[in-house]
Amino acid sequence: MIRSPDNDKLKTIRKLASKRWREKLGLFAAEGEDLVAAAERAGWDPRFVLRAGEDVEPELLDAVSALGSGSRVIGVYEQRWAAPGGDLSVWLHAVEDPGNVGTIIRSAHGLADGPVILGPRCADPFSPKAVRATMGSLFARPPARAALGELPGRTLALSPHAKLALREASFDPPLVLCLGGEREGLPAELERDAVRIEVGAESLNVAVAASIGLYEAANRMAGHG
Amino acid sequence: MIRSPDNDKLKTIRKLASKRWREKLGLFAAEGEDLVAAAERAGWDPRFVLRAGEDVEPELLDAVSALGSGSRVIGVYEQRWAAPGGDLSVWLHAVEDPGNVGTIIRSAHGLADGPVILGPRCADPFSPKAVRATMGSLFARPPARAALGELPGRTLALSPHAKLALREASFDPPLVLCLGGEREGLPAELERDAVRIEVGAESLNVAVAASIGLYEAANRMAGHG
Repeated sequence: MIRSPDNDKLKTIRKLASKRWREKLGLFAAEGEDLVAAAERAGWDPRFVLRAGEDVEPELLDAVSALGSGSRVIGVYEQRWAAPGGDLSVWLHAVEDPGNVGTIIRSAHGLADGPVILGPRCADPFSPKAVRATMGSLFARPPARAALGELPGRTLALSPHAKLALREASFDPPLVLCLGGEREGLPAELERDAVRIEVGAESLNVAVAASIGLYEAANRMAGHG
Repeated sequence: MIRSPDNDKLKTIRKLASKRWREKLGLFAAEGEDLVAAAERAGWDPRFVLRAGEDVEPELLDAVSALGSGSRVIGVYEQRWAAPGGDLSVWLHAVEDPGNVGTIIRSAHGLADGPVILGPRCADPFSPKAVRATMGSLFARPPARAALGELPGRTLALSPHAKLALREASFDPPLVLCLGGEREGLPAELERDAVRIEVGAESLNVAVAASIGLYEAANRMAGHG
């Protein structure tokens, strides 16, 4: 039973709240029973797992939680990146909010067969908030990294500025759905042939837009609609 | 220029971080230029607006920000509730995350003509996180409140446990799309005739599921797909 805040495992978890340390160590932390169970289901061996009251004094585990939600268990894992691929995947450009990146990883796990591919200036998918938002999909479907020019298959850009409606696009696989963050948007070369989700003058949250795009594409590839 | 943290307007903003005070005063705060501009566009008169450097010392405004993002402007408004209605609206049951409630208000503004109707145990749509997530849609389309039995029109429940696919549902207006929070779900009487978004064994974030449901319903009501 760990009874000192100077314990090395606790120190490691504290460090993993920062991106710099996550990159340096190649590790990340997953907080909560659901996420640790999802890792196990997906066949990931943890570097270590700490359970409150079994391995560590509950107050000490609380003190290193990055989510401040009184986690009863925290697992530490090695980062893994997938290769781009699949009939349907998503590429993100400058999506800076970790909750949005995590939510898109979760949606792609449910709706697509390929990974979420992170382009420049995206939030770290291994940050505590992103990992939490994936609800375990991070383990089943690790993200990939690629520049626009390295994407496999045809790209279909979703943009609030486009004229053509999403449902008028063609959805031949392999297809990479491309979305930009709400601040910076997509590279100009993608805007040219982009399609939009018809929402009047309003805009949608980027995780919502990505998920609607995946839903439409998955349905059309399956021959519906 | 306000130079004291004991100023009454600053005290009011500080109080509005708590739900108890928001209900007592019938007010809420909106942080950031985008939201204050959205309120103005929608014709809302603020109780007051404070701008850093014009009305108040920047450090003092920072200190009362509930979002901790260094807001340059904070507006305070009277809470407004809409009546349920429209050809397409959403009813939420026990959706406890304010970011999800706000994101659904934003999606409904873009995709539906009716309001988001809050059932029991939902997050307060006037909390700082919810208001921020609406990106101004709260002003254009204030939320409504109603119990299940008070809903206008036909209900269509979206549930991860349902067998029928969303696209096989009928979408005759007026339609109220019903979703439950990820913890508690929907009341049992709604589960019986629910439909699901087909995502294998996975589940979707509740704001994503609501938005996909609205997208499908809006398209089908418009005669597409």
